Amino acid sequence: LKPLDLRLYAVTDPAIAPAGRLAELVAEAIAGGATLVQLRDKSGDVRTALRAAEALLDVTRRAGVPLLVNDRVDVALAVEADGVHLGQDDMPVDIARRLLGPRAIIGLTVRSEEEARGVPPEASYAAIGGVFATSSKADAAKPIGLDGLARLAALIHRRHPSLALCAISGITAANAGEVVRAGVDGVAVISSLFAAADARAAASALRAAVDAALLESARA
Amino acid sequence: LKPLDLRLYAVTDPAIAPAGRLAELVAEAIAGGATLVQLRDKSGDVRTALRAAEALLDVTRRAGVPLLVNDRVDVALAVEADGVHLGQDDMPVDIARRLLGPRAIIGLTVRSEEEARGVPPEASYAAIGGVFATSSKADAAKPIGLDGLARLAALIHRRHPSLALCAISGITAANAGEVVRAGVDGVAVISSLFAAADARAAASALRAAVDAALLESARA
Repeated sequence: LKPLDLRLYAVTDPAIAPAGRLAELVAEAIAGGATLVQLRDKSGDVRTALRAAEALLDVTRRAGVPLLVNDRVDVALAVEADGVHLGQDDMPVDIARRLLGPRAIIGLTVRSEEEARGVPPEASYAAIGGVFATSSKADAAKPIGLDGLARLAALIHRRHPSLALCAISGITAANAGEVVRAGVDGVAVISSLFAAADARAAASALRAAVDAALLESARA
Repeated sequence: LKPLDLRLYAVTDPAIAPAGRLAELVAEAIAGGATLVQLRDKSGDVRTALRAAEALLDVTRRAGVPLLVNDRVDVALAVEADGVHLGQDDMPVDIARRLLGPRAIIGLTVRSEEEARGVPPEASYAAIGGVFATSSKADAAKPIGLDGLARLAALIHRRHPSLALCAISGITAANAGEVVRAGVDGVAVISSLFAAADARAAASALRAAVDAALLESARA
């Protein structure tokens, strides 16, 4: 398995497609450059989530790309996924770390300065957002924008200087560059990958934008 | 910890009361004769479920009564509860058994003949129902009645002759006797315990009805 790489984090939802087709879409996204995959199931239907996770693992394991499960630590344990992504209302990161062990990838959503200051040492990365408005999350709060993203990224790095960071919400190939330049290691995307006619091409365009911005930041 | 005893199975919900008061109510139910406790949280709020589970465990451990968590195997693992209760759409019993180990109590809801035939060997007990109409479950299917209960209990025992069984939905001290005589080891209750003015007195009346019917069945 490749080490944690947040450059292009593909977040999927079983509501997008049946398990088999979802796995195909993820395979295309990985072929286009996705470096990390998350299964985000908001339906609460554990059987569907387990089936989707098994189908995705067939693809991600072959590619050596880690698969994380949103929220449900038990689903991650059941399918032996590579970790979990947790919201602020989900299981606390330290408890998840205890249940999943030291090698699991555990990500945490950060939406505010308070949450940025509260990132625990057991987290593997933080996903900062929502940066822009998005259609993927109906209950989303006011977007924090690029300024908010830069501020939260700096706040997190003050306590955890080497913590991996990504940004989420409304990110496209057109804005991914400025997002990365705001101070994160990559972008998490749902709609701009899986609502695209060609997931591989969409991933490829996103990765190119992220990689160019990372190279530029490294040179600066 | 006492062995699995389904005579009076108290099912609680954090929506009934805050964690502290919920624990008091459960302590009263146990003082009145409850033999098993389940935390059933349908809100999906893991933090609330964890707090409620911790508060309940303080009470149940002192009494030696097992505490089960509905649906969330990860919450059960996090608080080291004594097991889980699973619906037919929750995590499959065999996977939960693998995650929780051989000593955990794992219960399964059974609502139909098909589900009765499908009870896996990894289950510790089956909860059959809904027997009568209830106010505790808005999406409940048509009640199976005492005849249905007897039929499903017999079907389960055909394959698992010694599996512990209880009945659920709409059970009160007035009907608990006939419920037990239909072929189960006890009753699971929510409303008739926790909506009562005095949970201890309500538990005591339910236990008396169950014990009398079990004694009668043993003599028959």
